[in-house]
Amino acid sequence: MEKAEIPVREATVEDAPAIARLLHDFNTEYEEQTPPVGELTRNAERMLREGEMTVLLTGQGPDGLALLRFRPSVWTDQQEAYLQELYVVPDLRGRGIGEALMQAVLSTCREHNAAWIELNTGEADLAARTLYKKLGFTNEEGPDGVAMLYYEREL
Amino acid sequence: MEKAEIPVREATVEDAPAIARLLHDFNTEYEEQTPPVGELTRNAERMLREGEMTVLLTGQGPDGLALLRFRPSVWTDQQEAYLQELYVVPDLRGRGIGEALMQAVLSTCREHNAAWIELNTGEADLAARTLYKKLGFTNEEGPDGVAMLYYEREL
Repeated sequence: MEKAEIPVREATVEDAPAIARLLHDFNTEYEEQTPPVGELTRNAERMLREGEMTVLLTGQGPDGLALLRFRPSVWTDQQEAYLQELYVVPDLRGRGIGEALMQAVLSTCREHNAAWIELNTGEADLAARTLYKKLGFTNEEGPDGVAMLYYEREL
Repeated sequence: MEKAEIPVREATVEDAPAIARLLHDFNTEYEEQTPPVGELTRNAERMLREGEMTVLLTGQGPDGLALLRFRPSVWTDQQEAYLQELYVVPDLRGRGIGEALMQAVLSTCREHNAAWIELNTGEADLAARTLYKKLGFTNEEGPDGVAMLYYEREL
């Protein structure tokens, strides 16, 4: 049986409150500190209005989002893309929503003339890692296939 | 004996040819594909002129660089910083040049009102990983200290 297509749409400024709520739930689930939803809404409005982020949404809730950043590159005349967040609400996981979002992410990156896309994920997030690998992402570099690691530091 | 201070300066558009040469050597050393130096020079000029990257240089060659990107954030009113490249010419490694660059990176990020800085590195690059850890970076997230991984895909 063919899977019903899961529609994905690009967010507008009007979606800022819904985006803020999803981002808040995302951080809460992963035990990260998170700003209150009101502050996230104002930030999301600013970022969308200024074209500083591209957000893809799916479902009526909405039930999932992909948050993309594009930037010019020193390596190429094309853009560089960064998938900053990918989230599906817990009750709806395992139904292909993440994959539908990621397929839309790849199309959107091509529309923005991006040469490549980068993302970070936790070693223990096997569902996400399996999806990224299936979609052609790699965590390895060089002839020996050494893993690439992500580091961060607060300032 | 106290170590002599290693001066680090911020690049201007005039440094584009030197930056292009260092980036070219960097990619060549790590067996990555690289555009020719002339193309990288034009790209570096464009990126510096438009304020799309901040490059820190050290030495007369110059002998090392740090390439930084800043972007606004949906999580905070501050900026997000990304260290895209860090390079010291092979003959001068082990003398503290990388650490001097990284100290300047952290100062520059604070001047740009960044809330945090992110970077990626290879699992086998122990010198870099030791330096990042010494400077307060972490590769781990969550209560269980799970490693954070970097993935990429060409488009």
